[in-house]
Amino acid sequence: MNYIFSEKVSHLQASAIREILKFTSDPSVISFAAGNPAPEAFPVEEVQRISQKLFQEEPIAVLQYGITEGYTPLRDTMKARMLAQGNFKPETEELIITSGAQQVMELACKSLCDPGDTLIAEAPSFIGSLNAFKSYNVNLVGVPLDDEGMDPVKLEEALKANPNTKLIYLIPNFQNPTGKTTTLKRRKELYALAQKYNTMILEDNPYGDLRFAGEDVPTIKSMDTDNRVIYAGSFSKVLAPGIRVGYAIAPKPVISKMVVCKQVSDVQSNNFGQMLAYRFMQEVDFDAHLQKLRAIYKQKAERMMNGMDKHFSRKITFTRPEGGLFIWCTLPQGSDMMGFCSRAVQENKVAVVPGSAFMISEQDETFSFRLNYSTPTDEAIDNGIEMLGALTKEMFGE
Amino acid sequence: MNYIFSEKVSHLQASAIREILKFTSDPSVISFAAGNPAPEAFPVEEVQRISQKLFQEEPIAVLQYGITEGYTPLRDTMKARMLAQGNFKPETEELIITSGAQQVMELACKSLCDPGDTLIAEAPSFIGSLNAFKSYNVNLVGVPLDDEGMDPVKLEEALKANPNTKLIYLIPNFQNPTGKTTTLKRRKELYALAQKYNTMILEDNPYGDLRFAGEDVPTIKSMDTDNRVIYAGSFSKVLAPGIRVGYAIAPKPVISKMVVCKQVSDVQSNNFGQMLAYRFMQEVDFDAHLQKLRAIYKQKAERMMNGMDKHFSRKITFTRPEGGLFIWCTLPQGSDMMGFCSRAVQENKVAVVPGSAFMISEQDETFSFRLNYSTPTDEAIDNGIEMLGALTKEMFGE
Repeated sequence: MNYIFSEKVSHLQASAIREILKFTSDPSVISFAAGNPAPEAFPVEEVQRISQKLFQEEPIAVLQYGITEGYTPLRDTMKARMLAQGNFKPETEELIITSGAQQVMELACKSLCDPGDTLIAEAPSFIGSLNAFKSYNVNLVGVPLDDEGMDPVKLEEALKANPNTKLIYLIPNFQNPTGKTTTLKRRKELYALAQKYNTMILEDNPYGDLRFAGEDVPTIKSMDTDNRVIYAGSFSKVLAPGIRVGYAIAPKPVISKMVVCKQVSDVQSNNFGQMLAYRFMQEVDFDAHLQKLRAIYKQKAERMMNGMDKHFSRKITFTRPEGGLFIWCTLPQGSDMMGFCSRAVQENKVAVVPGSAFMISEQDETFSFRLNYSTPTDEAIDNGIEMLGALTKEMFGE
Repeated sequence: MNYIFSEKVSHLQASAIREILKFTSDPSVISFAAGNPAPEAFPVEEVQRISQKLFQEEPIAVLQYGITEGYTPLRDTMKARMLAQGNFKPETEELIITSGAQQVMELACKSLCDPGDTLIAEAPSFIGSLNAFKSYNVNLVGVPLDDEGMDPVKLEEALKANPNTKLIYLIPNFQNPTGKTTTLKRRKELYALAQKYNTMILEDNPYGDLRFAGEDVPTIKSMDTDNRVIYAGSFSKVLAPGIRVGYAIAPKPVISKMVVCKQVSDVQSNNFGQMLAYRFMQEVDFDAHLQKLRAIYKQKAERMMNGMDKHFSRKITFTRPEGGLFIWCTLPQGSDMMGFCSRAVQENKVAVVPGSAFMISEQDETFSFRLNYSTPTDEAIDNGIEMLGALTKEMFGE
């Protein structure tokens, strides 16, 4: 038979970028295209020990149904941690465990946005979130970033032009894909604009614990005096993505709707991942664990940036992240970015993600691409950056 | 601030039924209201052994990101099993792993249904699926069941009246909540109607492996000559619901869209659950395991039905399931079903689920309620049924 798909998903297509990314399954390709944690960052021994105890001590609890809101001891632990960080107000807010932070985007958008409602995002932004929003047929409006974060003048223009704006989606720390961090001053300006135009903010903070340089900046959530911020956190980058455990903090009425939406989506997140995360936070010095991760990512990021300083054409610019997993690299204005990425993977066997993957529309102009330093080995970083550098010099001169 | 929710979710409300179900958290209440597997049905020793090996042998694979489609060895195992059962056609179909079968309903509806499109379901049907469909603002139309399954005359009327029908949702084996099994003849009639009106069928089969009496009936999927059936299976009732692993088989273009929707919903299902399910099916005699489960449920179902024969007023009728987890019990026409359920839980401390929970609209008339025999102990079954029986006699006579 002939299948007719819903309007909201029929425009979600596999993209031209996939043509480049499919080369990354070739084991001879050096991939800077992933967003995976470094394998050496996984606390394997602790997980082995905790898992064994978990299945010895409470096997039925791991296997049986749990509640949609999430495993209560993990929720309580995260509430206490978020309270201490200024991200949680027990009187007016709740915390829900989700199946990764991706599900926060899905549940928030589904709960709040009707088709045609406007959702404003940084341009560029994380493709997984952008596609989640698109799958609900929202009017997705991009506002560019400068070096301090989303441009407040352009945000105000977008808010004026779109009075039906429901959410402003921001990744203030070590943004994916740009690696940029929104300054404190800018965070305050963006929050003030959300107040002025009475819209909510969806603050996505998967990398906030992975700062390896500079000073922590307070979250927008911590400035949320009038309950308009939905905060998304995740264990994917600080424990393991394969367990699929994230969380959201939001005003109680919003969490109630997200619970209803989660119930019909996957009933509950898997118990094992939730119980592992809980015991890990109880039994392991979590902050010491984070220090280890930061040291790993600092070394990898610096190795990649040093290589780029040494090998790349001086025509190329790139961001210098203070945390997270990504560097955003920009070719000279007007150059053939897709051509560069294609030659890199096909001729040099080095894969990067073309910046168009992260634009609001894949057709939007960009001369940038994303580099990941968390997944490749040191040797792959050295070799891949040297080859990429040679290609930049060949295409754009010294 | 004042929160305005999307139209599609604003009508999803916590219901009057919750008022009854909240009593089930009282430990002195005997609950026949759950849908949980029997705790003694969990293969605890095998899970302990497999988990330990899994974390010793391939810890990074458990912790790292996997692919959206699901863990390849599990997919291959399930494809082979489904092929052998006549439920999978490798040339035209694909299999995706989902976060429980609940996610199949979500992904199928999201992929195929625009707001206002019609989705036809058995009336009554599983509340989790009905709410998933409602959360996409479909026109949800109920067609009643008789003793052979969904009424084909009324289905044809519904199809004629709703030419925009996208899906017919069916639970042909040991239906939730009625425990009824659709006969082979009726399955053929329903499939023929789907062909005649060119609509798809969503066949939900979470309980099919739990037959403890009578003969297996071929799935509708196995009759699907023209690729119009989406088949949903689950490990929740045959291994463990807490691992959140289900699967769908559907025509390749439909699976492709479901993969895109899953990517934006939770990226992938948790690796541990998928790898446990895979190793369990490799290392344990799965069919012998199913025989054990069937024996457990047969004993519990018979115990409950025998108790009902002995203690219930003769004015009360009930279904006699040949598998699954539920009995559907019907009070005399015109009686106060909600009043009965309230008195049962408040005065006798026995909880059942009022039938209105499973109606297309909670306001639809029903004199039935659902009993679960898988979760309570034998003693709880004996005592609870005796008390319920006494209440039926008090309210409706011998």
